[in-house]
Amino acid sequence: MGQYCNLVRDTMIPYQWEILNDRMEGKEPSHAILNFKIAAGLAEGDFYGEVFQDSDLAKWLEAAACCLETRPDPVLEAAIDDVITIIEKAQEKDGYLDTYFIIGNQEKRWQNLYECHELYCIGHMTEAAVAYYKATGKRRLLDMMSRCADYIDQCFGREPGKLRGYPGHQEIELALVRLYEVTGCERYLALSRYFLEERGKAPNYFINEWRTSRKRRTFKNNMRVGEPDLIYNQSHKSVYEQKSAVGHSVRAMYMYSAMADVARITNDATLYQTCRTLWKDVVYRQMYITGAIGSTHMGEAFTFAYDLPNATAYAETCASIGLMFFTSRMLRMDVNGVYGDVMEQVLYNVILGSMSRDGKHFFYVNPLEVWTEASEKNPERFHVKPVRQEWFGCACCPPNLARFFASLGKYLYSYNEDTFYIHLYVSGQVSAKTEHGIFRLSVSENYPWGGEIEVILEEVPSENAKIAIRIPGWCREWKLFLDGRECGCPVRNGYVWIYGGLRPGRKIRLVLSITAELVAANPRVRDDAGKTAIRRGPVIYCLEEIDNGKNLSAIRLDTKHAFCLEKEEGALSLETAAVTGRGFRLNEEAWGEELYRPLGSEEKEITVRAVPYCWWGNRGPGEMMVWIRT
Amino acid sequence: MGQYCNLVRDTMIPYQWEILNDRMEGKEPSHAILNFKIAAGLAEGDFYGEVFQDSDLAKWLEAAACCLETRPDPVLEAAIDDVITIIEKAQEKDGYLDTYFIIGNQEKRWQNLYECHELYCIGHMTEAAVAYYKATGKRRLLDMMSRCADYIDQCFGREPGKLRGYPGHQEIELALVRLYEVTGCERYLALSRYFLEERGKAPNYFINEWRTSRKRRTFKNNMRVGEPDLIYNQSHKSVYEQKSAVGHSVRAMYMYSAMADVARITNDATLYQTCRTLWKDVVYRQMYITGAIGSTHMGEAFTFAYDLPNATAYAETCASIGLMFFTSRMLRMDVNGVYGDVMEQVLYNVILGSMSRDGKHFFYVNPLEVWTEASEKNPERFHVKPVRQEWFGCACCPPNLARFFASLGKYLYSYNEDTFYIHLYVSGQVSAKTEHGIFRLSVSENYPWGGEIEVILEEVPSENAKIAIRIPGWCREWKLFLDGRECGCPVRNGYVWIYGGLRPGRKIRLVLSITAELVAANPRVRDDAGKTAIRRGPVIYCLEEIDNGKNLSAIRLDTKHAFCLEKEEGALSLETAAVTGRGFRLNEEAWGEELYRPLGSEEKEITVRAVPYCWWGNRGPGEMMVWIRT
Repeated sequence: MGQYCNLVRDTMIPYQWEILNDRMEGKEPSHAILNFKIAAGLAEGDFYGEVFQDSDLAKWLEAAACCLETRPDPVLEAAIDDVITIIEKAQEKDGYLDTYFIIGNQEKRWQNLYECHELYCIGHMTEAAVAYYKATGKRRLLDMMSRCADYIDQCFGREPGKLRGYPGHQEIELALVRLYEVTGCERYLALSRYFLEERGKAPNYFINEWRTSRKRRTFKNNMRVGEPDLIYNQSHKSVYEQKSAVGHSVRAMYMYSAMADVARITNDATLYQTCRTLWKDVVYRQMYITGAIGSTHMGEAFTFAYDLPNATAYAETCASIGLMFFTSRMLRMDVNGVYGDVMEQVLYNVILGSMSRDGKHFFYVNPLEVWTEASEKNPERFHVKPVRQEWFGCACCPPNLARFFASLGKYLYSYNEDTFYIHLYVSGQVSAKTEHGIFRLSVSENYPWGGEIEVILEEVPSENAKIAIRIPGWCREWKLFLDGRECGCPVRNGYVWIYGGLRPGRKIRLVLSITAELVAANPRVRDDAGKTAIRRGPVIYCLEEIDNGKNLSAIRLDTKHAFCLEKEEGALSLETAAVTGRGFRLNEEAWGEELYRPLGSEEKEITVRAVPYCWWGNRGPGEMMVWIRT
Repeated sequence: MGQYCNLVRDTMIPYQWEILNDRMEGKEPSHAILNFKIAAGLAEGDFYGEVFQDSDLAKWLEAAACCLETRPDPVLEAAIDDVITIIEKAQEKDGYLDTYFIIGNQEKRWQNLYECHELYCIGHMTEAAVAYYKATGKRRLLDMMSRCADYIDQCFGREPGKLRGYPGHQEIELALVRLYEVTGCERYLALSRYFLEERGKAPNYFINEWRTSRKRRTFKNNMRVGEPDLIYNQSHKSVYEQKSAVGHSVRAMYMYSAMADVARITNDATLYQTCRTLWKDVVYRQMYITGAIGSTHMGEAFTFAYDLPNATAYAETCASIGLMFFTSRMLRMDVNGVYGDVMEQVLYNVILGSMSRDGKHFFYVNPLEVWTEASEKNPERFHVKPVRQEWFGCACCPPNLARFFASLGKYLYSYNEDTFYIHLYVSGQVSAKTEHGIFRLSVSENYPWGGEIEVILEEVPSENAKIAIRIPGWCREWKLFLDGRECGCPVRNGYVWIYGGLRPGRKIRLVLSITAELVAANPRVRDDAGKTAIRRGPVIYCLEEIDNGKNLSAIRLDTKHAFCLEKEEGALSLETAAVTGRGFRLNEEAWGEELYRPLGSEEKEITVRAVPYCWWGNRGPGEMMVWIRT
């Protein structure tokens, strides 16, 4: 995992910085920083880009700040300070900050919350401010965004004279919680709660807005449009009444994350149960085996329970990042192994898979099945790209990936006064100050390719302290060693608990047995009926054309034959990660030009090679398939 | 089959007449006749409906005319004459006829051939005129449409001062051939050929039109639009260079039909080969087993070879009617059983299936798999309706079905001076006058449910005359009897030839052995890999939820077990047509809330019931599936 974090620091952050500054030749211009300069009066010109272009810079700032938190970098910090100066000049006196509206659309502020992304962009900038403050202690951006939040608090709410609106794209809700957590200002928490609880109330704000300030028009070309789609942004009913995940999946994840934050901080059992219901609906009914979510490109959205088409999946990278946000927040309220299981499922499959191994190419859409010709010739599959792209016109995924990896540490551990929890296994040092003292641990692993996790205790609050390490749900055999001696510790809620006699220098070794196995989907998932996926530890495998030839649909697996690592020894590579097994292939050569004929049985036996899904598409374009016929 | 023709005459024609006259309460108004009245100055108001609304009336007129040809009906004929009077008054002095442009858009004539359907609507009215003339001998509408064709001939062509355009929606090409055939006027044939041969030449007419007269705008709301999609209407290259079927499938079928007509009449071998290549591409690479075509709803279009998704198929009724046109025209040039095979595949499956058994409800889209919940909740499947609709805003399919069934006789037979060919088996009398004399035959059958076809010769030109009866490609056992005595006649090109001693009174009996069998698709069809369809004679079967429970994807067939008729004896009904066999079902009850788990094998044995595809959806909404796992 370390190499991905380095990739972010050493490659993605500098690369994206060049893009944000429009210094990459031959690339689509970003204009994001230039928009701020124009708004600041430091440059001439018009706003350019999406209405949410500001958020690209904000996400990058957050990612860069997170990198600074783990390793100081004066050059990067100076660049950030310079860009904060520009943002400061762009900010209006009243605290408002959104370059699309500052540059020439001043009078349209808050007039079209449904379509425009003002609160969304401000939310992202607020998250960046919190991260930068935490990394450097510098308050300038934090104060700017607090002023902005104060202004928003004056504009929105239930008091007379205020707008009773809420964001068209949720994000500021969770940003306000983070702002509350560093500033201690209760108004920000209350504003977040207001945005969540006002959402979807009747009469619907977005319908009213469409009738009044929007004059039934879209801002894009001022054309008349129909009533807004309330399911799309989860404003179709009160959040308390929402029982299944619907609509745009990134919006859903950000909203659920904020709901979980507010539930935790305010100890709200009803809101917690709502979150739990939604989390279960996502994870047990609408999540692909790769941890991807969003079954349709139309609205980049959820559809309904068990509708998980593989070849037309939307499965947006940002949605799965959002699922990490949501799941890690659920985990903060309820330490249970199921959350870590889902986090690693998402992390090692769809999220790693969304980046090329050089860190410069990205998937926005992460299908479970690719037929290259269909991606070119069937318009229903144009969104499915067989090759990672450099950057996107709508560039949400790459900067979101950067900020995710830069803050990966947040997902690995949690602790209270006497217990330190290890949720995910990633090599590194960690220390945590609790009321009873300090936990300092060093973790090393060869996970997920191997199952060896070693934890050396460097400092513990007391001998009564506890270490709880998650045992993955997929794992059926494992052993725990304390200073080399196998020991039987109790397992509760998916964690093995080690306690009694914890002293600095003690060494905990967890050995998980990892073998490739075949997995079935719940029969309610129509698309996967009669099919199987290959899983090895948390890693989902796929077939690629380069290994198995054209037409992967013609292959079925011999389920009686185990899949084994192709090469047991050696450094991690495609060869040591690939697995092979046996299967059968429909014999195309036995067919002439006829399209249909009486059923016969012309199959030939073949060797099937599968590679980790997260590495697919790194060897040129070609077919790919996760769910294989049996 | 007779009952469908009666349904058209007794139910559809009167029902659609009421709709065209806006006399059906609670139904979407058609306004088609009112548009003509307004254009004629007989009523006040604005044009209403699609830009091709005129064609609804034209298709109805053609259907009604065909009914008159087989059975006189003075009331219907009087109604037609009345409506022709209205049309006559609507027609402009120069011969132009299109109510959308006559009512208030006069100056825009021929300015937007790409989007507007002037030549298409005129084409349909020309077909109606030919049919009415043939049925009644009345020339009034024929003369009107000849004047219109003369005017078009003055407007379009390669001569200086003429527009070098061609239709945005092909149709007039085949209508002009029919007009030529009844009038003998060579100019109409030449105009048809011009439209076909000019199509797709560089520089492209539609691109020029978009830059000039269209001013890069769409007529619908005058908004700016991008370059026209030339593949959509098959104008991306010269027809001679087109090797695979692409774009909007109805447009493609109409164009190929006209090409086949021109190839036949002008004896053009190159054009014939082009038709043959395209026909093979459609039938051997892009046709569903039900005879449906058009793999995507986006552009109602073909995609590419072997891309035949079942659950998202567009499979428009009109496209398959168009495939009947095209195939029957290929058959006129080359009597080969493959054409009759395709015609019966289309007829007994997708075409019959598109109508409800009461003749008042229609499918526009004919999927091979329906998941009712997905049709409601997944926007990629909104076009797939689990229930036939009463009438459509864009009402092309129902009137097209009416004119198809009303002229069904054209597809059954052909003849030359000494041979009478029977392509499809439909009970009825037929007589044909050849140079050598008259063929008069009486056909009776219990096809396609049974395989008994009896032909009684009532009159033959001479004892040397020949009768050729198609032996279906699916049929592996059959017997031929002459006056009760089995005889071995030669088979050539898919027809059995009976000759020598043909005399009035002789009785030919063909007995085809029909049993249910399992069919496979070419392995290149990814969607059907590992699946099978049930076919009995030409009839394709499907599973329905009402017979097999929810979640048809969970079912796989036991291929070692034959499917048998549920009830061998009795009048034709669902019970005597249904077949049952054995299969297995994934056991949903063995699963809890988990979405994925290690592959096990929980299947239970079940009885599987399949019903003819053409009857699906007549017992309430529910799931349906043609291709079943094995």
